[in-house]
Amino acid sequence: MIERGEDTIDSFQARVARGECDELSWWHTCQAEIQARDTDIRAWECLMPSTSAEVMSSPGQLLRGVPVGIKDIIDTAEMPTTWGTEGYLVSPGAVMDAAVVTLLRHQGALPLGKTVSTEFAYFTPGKTRNPLDISRTPGGSSSGSAAAVAAGMVPLALGTQTAGSIIRPASYCGVFGFKPTLNTVSFSGIKAFAPSMDTLGWFARHMDDICTAFTALTRSDPIKALPDLRGIRVGLRNLPGEGPLDYDVVRALSLTVKQLEQAGASVFTLPLDARYDELIEHHKVVLAYEAAQTLASEFHHHGEEMGVKLVELIEQGTATSYIDYRASLLAAEQCRQALSRVFADKADVILAASAPGVAPEGLHATGDPIYCRAWTLLGVPCLNLPLHTGQAGLPVGVQLIADRWQDQRLLSIAKTLLATVM
Amino acid sequence: MIERGEDTIDSFQARVARGECDELSWWHTCQAEIQARDTDIRAWECLMPSTSAEVMSSPGQLLRGVPVGIKDIIDTAEMPTTWGTEGYLVSPGAVMDAAVVTLLRHQGALPLGKTVSTEFAYFTPGKTRNPLDISRTPGGSSSGSAAAVAAGMVPLALGTQTAGSIIRPASYCGVFGFKPTLNTVSFSGIKAFAPSMDTLGWFARHMDDICTAFTALTRSDPIKALPDLRGIRVGLRNLPGEGPLDYDVVRALSLTVKQLEQAGASVFTLPLDARYDELIEHHKVVLAYEAAQTLASEFHHHGEEMGVKLVELIEQGTATSYIDYRASLLAAEQCRQALSRVFADKADVILAASAPGVAPEGLHATGDPIYCRAWTLLGVPCLNLPLHTGQAGLPVGVQLIADRWQDQRLLSIAKTLLATVM
Repeated sequence: MIERGEDTIDSFQARVARGECDELSWWHTCQAEIQARDTDIRAWECLMPSTSAEVMSSPGQLLRGVPVGIKDIIDTAEMPTTWGTEGYLVSPGAVMDAAVVTLLRHQGALPLGKTVSTEFAYFTPGKTRNPLDISRTPGGSSSGSAAAVAAGMVPLALGTQTAGSIIRPASYCGVFGFKPTLNTVSFSGIKAFAPSMDTLGWFARHMDDICTAFTALTRSDPIKALPDLRGIRVGLRNLPGEGPLDYDVVRALSLTVKQLEQAGASVFTLPLDARYDELIEHHKVVLAYEAAQTLASEFHHHGEEMGVKLVELIEQGTATSYIDYRASLLAAEQCRQALSRVFADKADVILAASAPGVAPEGLHATGDPIYCRAWTLLGVPCLNLPLHTGQAGLPVGVQLIADRWQDQRLLSIAKTLLATVM
Repeated sequence: MIERGEDTIDSFQARVARGECDELSWWHTCQAEIQARDTDIRAWECLMPSTSAEVMSSPGQLLRGVPVGIKDIIDTAEMPTTWGTEGYLVSPGAVMDAAVVTLLRHQGALPLGKTVSTEFAYFTPGKTRNPLDISRTPGGSSSGSAAAVAAGMVPLALGTQTAGSIIRPASYCGVFGFKPTLNTVSFSGIKAFAPSMDTLGWFARHMDDICTAFTALTRSDPIKALPDLRGIRVGLRNLPGEGPLDYDVVRALSLTVKQLEQAGASVFTLPLDARYDELIEHHKVVLAYEAAQTLASEFHHHGEEMGVKLVELIEQGTATSYIDYRASLLAAEQCRQALSRVFADKADVILAASAPGVAPEGLHATGDPIYCRAWTLLGVPCLNLPLHTGQAGLPVGVQLIADRWQDQRLLSIAKTLLATVM
């Protein structure tokens, strides 16, 4: 997907500094790309007027002049929000930008438009198609963000993940997708779904840009690559351990193991007991219970317009008892604590499948988040690496995972791997 | 505060069932009480029109006909929200009720009006006065909810706590105040401040009503009193262990110890190491960092109108590094895990000070949340017991605290104690 010579955020800013282009030039390039390609891809719900680009000025901005796609469940003052409802719910006027949009603007970024989301970021698909094969789903729920980044329509786009809504579309579309540790970036002004798992993250075509966005949004130090991966311990383990896994993914994992080893890492099969596999079911319980609470008002007013799967989930959540919900939360908490000890004692990162295979055919569904549910419930940072291809030349991602709040370490390891691979 | 013969939610519903009053009668009584008393107390930001009471009908409603005060940082479709800003920010039209308001309506409750909040639920006071002495603060940030319940203007009111915003005003106003385990009730449609601590809770004049609201909002089984407190281990420990503590509070704690022992509990001084005292400072770090992120848009547009203390906090948060923030979160997580072992091995509940003393004089500040900060950061359920009085006959609360997700156990123990005391 990445074309030679294509700008990263850093290289663009260096070109602006050298006077080779002006700071609105990336914005205009993106606008043109959208004009040319979005009739097919349908990644955008709406766009900012092309005259409205204005870079907020302040010193040391890391995202100055960088166009950003904003998932359509995130409030924006200048564009409506529809939460993937196809119009049965539209934001009222006088809404403020969500906190993260203001944080991006402070860093000089330019919101370019709203990217298509599935309905309330659950399963009912929007109109977006996979840029690599428009007969296939881009994945969801951050469908438009993943597709827009993959199609080269924008260098950076915001997504959210409550089950597999960043990692899965990133895998299907062949881009980097990063879900940081739960609660890393404020969800204020973003429609909640299951608050103990809802996490804001982002997509990019370059590993460096994933890192720059992290630094910009957390105001932390720049992520540095290591000299190599010697001494880095990588545990290989999918959650669930047994599931619907295509040969494409097995092969992508195996190729990634080789790349990690070539960079100096030691890779081993990580034994995790059966409790971790049960997290898939616990995730479903927490998702249903919290969604039924959180979307109570939306369901009350618009239940009849909602997609079948969302209605099913809310009804299932309404029928879930507090005791069962609590039991699932406590099971997750036990695994979270146990996994922290695993990370401390045995593995710096875990390598795992991002999705069961390449993007499925058809646009009626967004694929299965099964290989993301447990990690999302655990709240750990996850990064999709778009390094391999499967059948029909379609991308197959794998994910690297670290302990909670080890985001900088995770990104540093990935950056080092990428420097070796490229 | 509690008048003899005054209705609880259960007794009101029994009277309705017997045909002694109609299901709107409590609503009308509350409206009349507000007319009579709110000129002095100033607990309400706005009221529902008296003609608009309409009980939503569905079977098994636990709060049928119960008027409820809604803190003014919680979205309501039929009333504006001002977030304690005195009008520099007002909710746009077409806003939906926050999730919790819909959950209350489903249970038959009647939102009666919006109760005064401090500015964005931080320190800048609203107009509310303490019903027990109008020259004193009611505490904050849930000032109007605590005062309205204390003054008998409403039997139940919603509050939120990020530092000490439920427990402290409950103590100052002499009512029960309950902050459940973090994330127990959805925060969707409520203005976030520091999401890893923001917790929705409620005030009532009766312990039974605190329990009924818990059952209604979580759809869990009714809370039952135990025969007595024999076998219940109560650990006495304030956080911080050393701080500004009036004799009134020392005495209230000591009287509560006696009451617990009379009910059969064994009470002992709980040793907790110095790390727990450090949580006060970690709370401040997390509060500042998250508030600066979460209120980024509000600060961008309205920073010049904001109160001095809020601006200071946001500036402090902006200057706080990601590394320091993460260190505070990790310190809290360590204590959370250690405290779970303490609860499992040594104590069913902890007894602690709610506030440094009775409500301070003056309306320029809302008192010090110091004795709540650590517990809020730990995410544990906390209940203010309004059982004692201090100087000038003013109430002095103490709090009972349990491990995360042991809310039912905590409420059951408190209900048993109350049955013994009353």
